[in-house]
Parts: sequence; structure tokens; C-alpha cells
Amino acid sequence: MVNPVAPHATAFELVAHDGDARAGTLRTPHGAVPTPCFMAVATLGGLKGVTVQQAEELGQGVVLGNTYHLALRPGAETVRALGGLHRFSGWRGPMLTDSGGYQVFSLAANRTITDAGVSFRSHLDGTALELTPEESIRIQRLLGADIIMAFDECPPAKAPREDILACNRRTALWLARSVAAWRADGPHGGASDQSLYGIVQGGLHRDAREASAADALRHDLPGYALGGLAVGESAEERLRVIGWIAPILPRERPRYLMGVGTPLDLIEAIARGMDQFDCVLPTRMGRHGIAYTDDGPMRIKRAEFIADARPIDESTPSQASRVSRGYLHHLLKSGEHLGGSLLSLHNLAYYRQLMARCRAAIRAGRFAAFAEAFRVRYRDEKGGAEGAKDG
Amino acid sequence: MVNPVAPHATAFELVAHDGDARAGTLRTPHGAVPTPCFMAVATLGGLKGVTVQQAEELGQGVVLGNTYHLALRPGAETVRALGGLHRFSGWRGPMLTDSGGYQVFSLAANRTITDAGVSFRSHLDGTALELTPEESIRIQRLLGADIIMAFDECPPAKAPREDILACNRRTALWLARSVAAWRADGPHGGASDQSLYGIVQGGLHRDAREASAADALRHDLPGYALGGLAVGESAEERLRVIGWIAPILPRERPRYLMGVGTPLDLIEAIARGMDQFDCVLPTRMGRHGIAYTDDGPMRIKRAEFIADARPIDESTPSQASRVSRGYLHHLLKSGEHLGGSLLSLHNLAYYRQLMARCRAAIRAGRFAAFAEAFRVRYRDEKGGAEGAKDG
Repeated sequence: MVNPVAPHATAFELVAHDGDARAGTLRTPHGAVPTPCFMAVATLGGLKGVTVQQAEELGQGVVLGNTYHLALRPGAETVRALGGLHRFSGWRGPMLTDSGGYQVFSLAANRTITDAGVSFRSHLDGTALELTPEESIRIQRLLGADIIMAFDECPPAKAPREDILACNRRTALWLARSVAAWRADGPHGGASDQSLYGIVQGGLHRDAREASAADALRHDLPGYALGGLAVGESAEERLRVIGWIAPILPRERPRYLMGVGTPLDLIEAIARGMDQFDCVLPTRMGRHGIAYTDDGPMRIKRAEFIADARPIDESTPSQASRVSRGYLHHLLKSGEHLGGSLLSLHNLAYYRQLMARCRAAIRAGRFAAFAEAFRVRYRDEKGGAEGAKDG
Repeated sequence: MVNPVAPHATAFELVAHDGDARAGTLRTPHGAVPTPCFMAVATLGGLKGVTVQQAEELGQGVVLGNTYHLALRPGAETVRALGGLHRFSGWRGPMLTDSGGYQVFSLAANRTITDAGVSFRSHLDGTALELTPEESIRIQRLLGADIIMAFDECPPAKAPREDILACNRRTALWLARSVAAWRADGPHGGASDQSLYGIVQGGLHRDAREASAADALRHDLPGYALGGLAVGESAEERLRVIGWIAPILPRERPRYLMGVGTPLDLIEAIARGMDQFDCVLPTRMGRHGIAYTDDGPMRIKRAEFIADARPIDESTPSQASRVSRGYLHHLLKSGEHLGGSLLSLHNLAYYRQLMARCRAAIRAGRFAAFAEAFRVRYRDEKGGAEGAKDG
């Protein structure tokens, strides 16, 4: 059902694979990015504590904006009046917007869900609002990101089977309407300028996941996402779902694992064939004083770092590399936002570099050994991708 | 009394003058800076919301660290263990530290002042501490800035004449001890690596100011500062004091006006022969949503900027130039620290550029016309340098 006169706005080229792990190139109207690719989250349009020039400098590939937050403030029409999300935020590279659904389900109050859509109240000021597939796509067209997401219903992690199947039904219904709204003519955005990704739901049930994947694949879309993960399930459960679904997604389309995760989570998902990821962890944990390294998260506020003259991590150049762990400790203990910004810069640089290392290992046919060495070295007392979603 | 075998660590060269306004070059062990020169305040060692790379990029000349804050946390010995204030903060250009006196007088509790020094309690945790001329210089030698300041007593703006004279006496006594501590041998810093500036006090009384200047000049120091201003006096009173003292300071030494001020304050002080300035306004006001321009402060949170697609100021390039007033309005209204960082970057770039414009006007012999045009255009509903000091 691809419109022959309107090729996809983005194109994915598979460059190499190594077992199930894939290296590719994702071409968008705002530039090409190598995959596997980590997308940094700019909840309100800006990366928290990081300027677009700093993001460019560290080679950030894709930036993700949150439709729900931007629709509430400053409003999609205001973003459009200021030139769309690229002009608005100053980010010149590829962008993706989510559908807003996840935030409606996690942040908004007084939700009423029907087949038509979701009625809710803004978490900011209580205003009554409605989000439907058509409205989500309309907003995402006004924002103008390169990749936009279908409006779906994400069930809670441990929802009963019948609820999962009901969510699947609605997700399929809403996907068809999202696709129609994306393909429709209009003053801004749409299929010629933006690529729509469908989202696979289905909880932790293999048959429900496979059914949802079949629903999405029916539309032959530019990309596919795995949703409904990082919502409270275990890492083992999550990897099981990825293991079921990645193999049935088309080889020649990018595969996006939504809302995941820690460095180790990403390695495991790449090993199972996923290409794109987003997560607030690098910036959120940076603000909380945590630096990611190959040895696991480093809690810079710990007393052991007071007089530590070493940089966070010799092998990750960033604007934080020029200063010591002791200085970062001092900034964080003193409540200086600069400390959180520097750790966010480090973490984004670390994620960026980790994706490049994965890609190089895949291209060299040594990804399994790379991943195994990573697993052995990486130590995270908490583990998992909990608290990883949203901004 | 200059030690002939130990020339000053810094050197000042007067390049041009135009009326009383001066253009010069201040050479330090960490590079040369053109004057007039604005010094950005890094209270706790870091510019608030701005990385050292960003400060370099905008051409920041000198960075100022606060001895009181750094002595309390993380402690001068810790900064020294981490390589001194330059290595600690990552700033590679010239640095200045104040004596700590101003913060002891404005922030600390339970102060007892005697000729020996000041006993007080830390504003952080109530620890009993003492600051003397010797201790201030010892700390500043451990910090290792290029320019260090004598320990002085700053009287309140409207102090009675006898209090002013008592402060003058103590300032002179403490200066002699500061000079001795600076010249003394020691494991770190001192006269061969650091330049000590003396501070002229004396409130709003001409004879007291002139007497304090004579006390300072007796030591033939590498530079002289005007202190005890921006503490509640009117702009008119401040300019009167500058007009008395600048002419009696030696031509071949830099003149530093402490804690001042707004762009207009700087123009007026430059017109009267001052060379160096420091103030928290560019970063503090940036965090509060205020951008400085030739038209005066622009309050970006005002509703009129919601959908304003223009950059803050076409003529001031900075990392904030790529985005619109509407975007900055959105970030500030949303409580995103990135908004304050971007306005701080703009303001530091604006101050930097303003100093360069003043210098060019002085060198071209058209400073009076430049200053007059600036006065006519600049509109500040508040005016003055109130709230300008400290960080």
C-alpha cells in the first residue's frame, strides 16, 4: 500500500548484520544517522541542560520531542508559527515525535478511553482535552519531525490477557486511522515529509504480540516500534518479547524499541535485532549525579570522589572530560546545575559512542564477543530500565 | 618597593586613551586580555549554567572565583589537591579570586571583627571560622588565580564618617599584612605567580577615599581596585567616587571596579577611566529570564514574546542566537534550566562584545560619542547596580 508517487520521507539501508544484530543507515530529510542509534529525549523541545550546539558537537544522531508536553505548552500551533520543531528548538538533525499517548496514560488525570480516543485533563492546569489518532497526527504534522508515531494504547505491564487483547484491538483501529491521517493531504507535514512508524503492543503474551505485529505490518510502514515495554516488566521478560517480535519484522525497515534503557539494555536489544532507542536516562541520571561508564553507573556524589583528580572516563571525550570527578562531585554537592549538565553531556557522549562501538563490532563480525565482554564488565546494582521512560 | 628580582606576575600595557577612557592589554600567566574587560563570576568555581568550553567560545576574558565559597566548600586544600582553581574548574584563561571579605560581611553569621581579622560562622553549616589577611592570602595562594585581592573591610554604604575612617584604618593595616603574606616564600603561589591588587575604600567621603587610595598606593602594587561600591549607593554617588579616585591611580596600572554592574554602569565607569569589572548580573539575570541588549534588559517571560520568531538580538552571536525569543520564553515559562543557560550565554556574549565595542571606540577616539549614543538608547526601568554583587 505504499503510495508509488510518495516514497517514504526516510529510508533505511541495512549495512551489515552479525547474528541478529544489525548495522544500518537511516536517511531522513534532516540528515543520515548510523544505526544502532540512540535518540536523546527533548521532552519540552530542548534537551535538558544541553544546548543544540553541544548535542551537535557530541554527534547526537536523533532528538525526540514529546507531543503531549509540546501540545500542552506552548501548543502545536505556536511551535508551527515559530517554524516547526526544528526551527523552534534549533536542532538541525533528524527528529522524532511520539504520539502523546504514553504521557496521556502516565501523566494526565481523569482519563476516559473510548474507541474514538482519550479524554483527559492536562497535568499542568486541569484543562479538559482530547487526543485521538487524527489529533495526534495533526499535532505531529504541525511539529514536523522526520519520524512520527502512530497513536496507540499501551496496557499496563501486568494487565490481564483480555485487557491486552482489548488494547490490541484499539491499537489496530487507531493505527489505521493514524495511517489515514498521515497519508491525507494537508498544509503541513504528512507522508511526503514525515515517516510514520507503527507500534507493536501485546504485553507479555506471545500470541498477542504476534497478532499486534501482524496488524502493524499490514500497513507496510517506513518503520516499526516495539511499545509497551520499560513499563515495569523484568529485563528477562522484555528480552523475551524482543526475541519473539524482532525476527518477524521486515529486514529492510528500522526497528525502534521505545523507552529503553540502560547501556546494558541497549546491548541486549541490539543483540536481538533492534536498531533505534530512546530514553531519558542519560540526561535524567546525569542531573541526579550518575555517570554511565563501561563499569556501570558511577555515583559521583559519593564521598570517594571528593579528591579524585581523574576525569569520569578516559575513553569518553565530552565537555565534562576537562574536569575531575572531584570537581563534578563539588558541583553536584553544591547544587550547581552545571554539574548535572556536564554529566548529561558525558552520558549522551557515552551512549553515542556505545552505539558507534556496537556498530563497528557488528560490521567486523565480532558483536557477540563485544556484547559478552560488556556484560561481564558492566555492574549496575539496580539494573533494568525502570524509571527510564518519560521526561 | 617592587622586588626587582620578582617582576609582577601580570603586566598592564596602556594601548590608547580617549578622554579618561582607556584601552589596554592585561598580560597574565594564563594569557592576555584586552581591556576594558568584564570578568564573569564563577562563585563556586564554575560559571552558573555555562561550561568552560562555552565560555572560551564566546571569548570570555577573565573568570572570577569566590574565596569565601571555595574555602567553605570544597576547601582550599581540596582545590589545591585537584591542581588549583584552573585545573579544578577546567578554565585555562586568566582568573581572579576575591579575598572572601565581602562574603563574610554579607553572608556569614555571628561576625566579630577585630584588628586581627574576622570570626564568623559558615552560612552553610554554622562552623566557627576565622578569616585574617594572612589566611585570605594563604587560601588565595592555594587556589592559584593570576590576580588575588587584598583582605579589606567594606563599610555599609551609608555608614557614619567615623565608621568609614575606622574601616580605612583596618583596611590599611590588613593591606600591609596581605602584601607581606603575598610576598612571603611558600610552597604555592605568591608574588612571582600571582598579582595582588590593593582595594580603595572610604565610602562616599572624598577625603576618606583619597586617604585610602594613598594607603594602597604606598605599596606600589600590580593593580588597584575600587571597593565598597554597588552596596546600596546611587549611581550618581558611585560615579562621583570613581571621578575622584580614578585620576589619582597610576596610569600604568589596571583599575578594577568591584561588583559593578549593568551595561550602562560599565560604560559610565569606562568613561571615567576604569579597566576591569566583575558582576553576577549576566548569569543571575539570565537565570531570571532577562537578556541584556543595547535597548536595555529584555524580560523574555513577558507574554509579548510567546510567538516572537526573532532571536534575542541580531547583533550578538551566541549559542542562544539559533533559537527564537518564543522558544526561550517557552523554556523559561516551563522552568527548564536550559533557558537560563541560554540567556546567560547571551548575556556573557553581550558583555564581552560591549567591552570590545568600547575598546574599539576608545582606540578610534570616538568613545564619548559611543557612550552618549548608548545612554540615549539604553532603557532600564530599574537602573543602577543594585543586587549586582555576590553569587
